[in-house]
Amino acid sequence: MPHYVVGHKIPDSDSICSAIALSYLKTTLGEETVPARLGELSPETLFILDKFGFEQPELKMSYAGESLYIVDHSERTQGPDDIDEATILGIIDHHKLGDITTSTPLECWIRPVGCTNTIIKMMYDFHNVEIPKNIAGAMMCAILSDTVIFKSPTCTTADIKCVEALAEIAGIDDPETLGMEMFKVKSAVEGTPVRDLVLRDFKDFDMNGNLVGIGQLEVIDLAIFDDIKADLEADIAKLKAEGNRHTVLLLLTDIMKEGSEMLVVSDSADITERAYGKATSEGKVWLDGVLSRKKQVVPPLQEAFA
Amino acid sequence: MPHYVVGHKIPDSDSICSAIALSYLKTTLGEETVPARLGELSPETLFILDKFGFEQPELKMSYAGESLYIVDHSERTQGPDDIDEATILGIIDHHKLGDITTSTPLECWIRPVGCTNTIIKMMYDFHNVEIPKNIAGAMMCAILSDTVIFKSPTCTTADIKCVEALAEIAGIDDPETLGMEMFKVKSAVEGTPVRDLVLRDFKDFDMNGNLVGIGQLEVIDLAIFDDIKADLEADIAKLKAEGNRHTVLLLLTDIMKEGSEMLVVSDSADITERAYGKATSEGKVWLDGVLSRKKQVVPPLQEAFA
Repeated sequence: MPHYVVGHKIPDSDSICSAIALSYLKTTLGEETVPARLGELSPETLFILDKFGFEQPELKMSYAGESLYIVDHSERTQGPDDIDEATILGIIDHHKLGDITTSTPLECWIRPVGCTNTIIKMMYDFHNVEIPKNIAGAMMCAILSDTVIFKSPTCTTADIKCVEALAEIAGIDDPETLGMEMFKVKSAVEGTPVRDLVLRDFKDFDMNGNLVGIGQLEVIDLAIFDDIKADLEADIAKLKAEGNRHTVLLLLTDIMKEGSEMLVVSDSADITERAYGKATSEGKVWLDGVLSRKKQVVPPLQEAFA
Repeated sequence: MPHYVVGHKIPDSDSICSAIALSYLKTTLGEETVPARLGELSPETLFILDKFGFEQPELKMSYAGESLYIVDHSERTQGPDDIDEATILGIIDHHKLGDITTSTPLECWIRPVGCTNTIIKMMYDFHNVEIPKNIAGAMMCAILSDTVIFKSPTCTTADIKCVEALAEIAGIDDPETLGMEMFKVKSAVEGTPVRDLVLRDFKDFDMNGNLVGIGQLEVIDLAIFDDIKADLEADIAKLKAEGNRHTVLLLLTDIMKEGSEMLVVSDSADITERAYGKATSEGKVWLDGVLSRKKQVVPPLQEAFA
């Protein structure tokens, strides 16, 4: 029975590309391993897979009785629902340490860098395994996506050096141009149902017993939302009403202006004031310089809930 | 303000030596870091520090407001009591993943190997930092201790290769002879108060909401306990009565015969039968081949409590 590698629910490019890259590495090292996914892929990820000739990983929601590697998260709310019935062989991640625990020793490569694929590259180097050209391309795109083409405050010199090395392997002369092409695909919202946009890159967090959902849409120009912003606001209110979340946030991130407009629905009216020192006006607040959910949005919110 | 490196409560040689080795590495890399300890040292650890010319690390129980690296554990019950008020910069460990969480990204090096110091050696290699002779000696002794001179089922080829490399750096021709010398020090029980023996290498675990304390004494010949076994049994019963533990186990491990006698006090009379398939007789059971708490004792017990 092969082992699996799986990223978080509502998979992003990092979750998918790191699953592909890690399963190739493990298989090369003699441990048959296949990538899987916990949901449908975004247009950006489909663009990457298409560009480098990959099939979509297997859609697999249940892992009871299986052995698996977890990539790009360590939070129970973000992983498979039946993770307790699986054996976790390892975790490769670049987020805060979540609440997944194991009953046996395992392998964890967790680093405060911009992207899981930067860590997977370290693993290839550690094991002295050559990265195939197409896997290097996919890894590189995931890093460009997670670091917002190096603009995110989560980006480290390790990420930049890693992109340079992967670009050379993949034979790509200008990674940043490819990054912009990718973000143009990511920016396309026309014709997409509003709920799909809200959930395109959406993560749930347990904050001191409160369930908090945070979505993010990164685009090249925020004007793209002018016609649908009211619909997005209505839909996150609907999403909150449907479930048991204390707060739902949607970040509309302008990667060129380097900031985010945050749409807020919360049981605590003053939540953004307490977390970010700035109150909402009509359920919205502009947060200048905020590009990273992980580094700039989640930690202050967690403090506010503590 | 320097950063700290601290191992688990009731520190063993791995916790202390890895704190010394990691703090030297981090300081060399430009991040001023000092080793600390959460309790008194065992005769074995004192022997190692004396042999290689180290002072005892600072005794420091409170870390509120500090930044620290955690070594040799990832369980809340085993770490500093006020860990929630500290910033965890990283975790280096070789156990199952425990319930410590963080609110910011961090550095985790967790591997299923026999000793934390084997992982610290990988970190030195990764950063291309030379290991000083005395630190190499202390790291080597910690690995010999944790792997019971390579006899433990937790021992991996990585541990054996690491001892070889460290022995060369430290200029030690015969690591196994030094290991036996160390275990002779460890075997000395005469004149030591019974409670000190019970707690010499004692760890608490949260098993599905039940607090379980497991001590271990590794000796060269189990006969050393003949005169004090009844006192040890009485004392673990007393220890259980004093606190809120569901179960207290004391492993008397014979490293030459390669097995352990387990002394048991538990709210569930059949706990060893359910976990290890063997009932106790008068509160004791011999478990052949069992040398490792981490790999052979904890996981089946966790299953039994699940």
